[in-house]
Amino acid sequence: MTIKAKKHQDPALAQARREQVLTAAADCFRRRGYHGAGMAEISKTAGMSPGHIYNYFDGKEAIIAGIIEQNMADLFSLLAGFAECDGDLVQAMVDGADYGVEKNLDPAYAALQLEMLSEAARNDKVATLLRHADDSMRAQLKLLLAGPQGSLRTLPDFEVDARIELLASVYNGLLVRAVLHPQLDRQQLLQALRPWLRQLLAG
Amino acid sequence: MTIKAKKHQDPALAQARREQVLTAAADCFRRRGYHGAGMAEISKTAGMSPGHIYNYFDGKEAIIAGIIEQNMADLFSLLAGFAECDGDLVQAMVDGADYGVEKNLDPAYAALQLEMLSEAARNDKVATLLRHADDSMRAQLKLLLAGPQGSLRTLPDFEVDARIELLASVYNGLLVRAVLHPQLDRQQLLQALRPWLRQLLAG
Repeated sequence: MTIKAKKHQDPALAQARREQVLTAAADCFRRRGYHGAGMAEISKTAGMSPGHIYNYFDGKEAIIAGIIEQNMADLFSLLAGFAECDGDLVQAMVDGADYGVEKNLDPAYAALQLEMLSEAARNDKVATLLRHADDSMRAQLKLLLAGPQGSLRTLPDFEVDARIELLASVYNGLLVRAVLHPQLDRQQLLQALRPWLRQLLAG
Repeated sequence: MTIKAKKHQDPALAQARREQVLTAAADCFRRRGYHGAGMAEISKTAGMSPGHIYNYFDGKEAIIAGIIEQNMADLFSLLAGFAECDGDLVQAMVDGADYGVEKNLDPAYAALQLEMLSEAARNDKVATLLRHADDSMRAQLKLLLAGPQGSLRTLPDFEVDARIELLASVYNGLLVRAVLHPQLDRQQLLQALRPWLRQLLAG
């Protein structure tokens, strides 16, 4: 009970400890797979006792949920930045392609995402967590693109949905490219991606 | 030695047995993961003794190599069909999008591909097999698109490479969409994909 009390007394420390566990777990999932990585190994990698970890997470599924939550927080802060930009939304998102390409082509990020995605095929709880996050991502993008200020606001609903799906396919596909073609030229890819993005995001 | 002799005497039967093993192994890898699926389980699923399987495959890596080979044979026969079409190459590839979308969105196909991709992050031999297949796929596409009859033959080399990478990203991304958004509307996606494909493949 002392630790729990401590956690409540110092939210910043609790947050730091949670992140310490998530980073260690991500590392273990990548190296050993979700099934292969036990709480004992995660605890060793995090340099925390298993009992201490259980103060923050109920188990591996709660940890996966925490990793997905972190990813979504990053993505939503990126989308919020686009929403608040004074200038042209399409231009901001075309410029933002650099970030999306770098992030999804990062070998460590890609390996972890692919591990969670392949686990989802066998594990309904992981699948539900990932799908819920994807639903939120698409809803948020739709608000941005088809809302009152959105570049796609005059398009029919189904066309907006299809374009969002295509946008998601390209960025999700980079996770696979990171594994299959790690030497691909990022600048050349961006040069081909930008005009396409512009066309996709313009009404 | 009797079985090996049989295999050589009847190549069609040997081929059927190989396919029987590949199908069983694919099923096991999906359900249990590459690490979780042992040769004993593959042999049980295939309805063949482990000794019999070892007449065709040295082990799990040889089986993964066989699965990748099958996928490549399918893809190369698709590309050969495009190369031999009398009419417009771009139109043939735009029409062919139906097949690519259906195949990559198939949950069983996607689950197996994602399992192999996440295994590649931990297993250099699997990574090498997958990358070699991807290199061949890109080389073949480049021959088709930038060869003497190709729609991209007038573009600079780096632009052709970037477009092929983007094409690969979209189709690879559908593997991820199959998991994250299984209910996505295929017809709407195709409707948005086709004009983009046409633009990407036209010089």
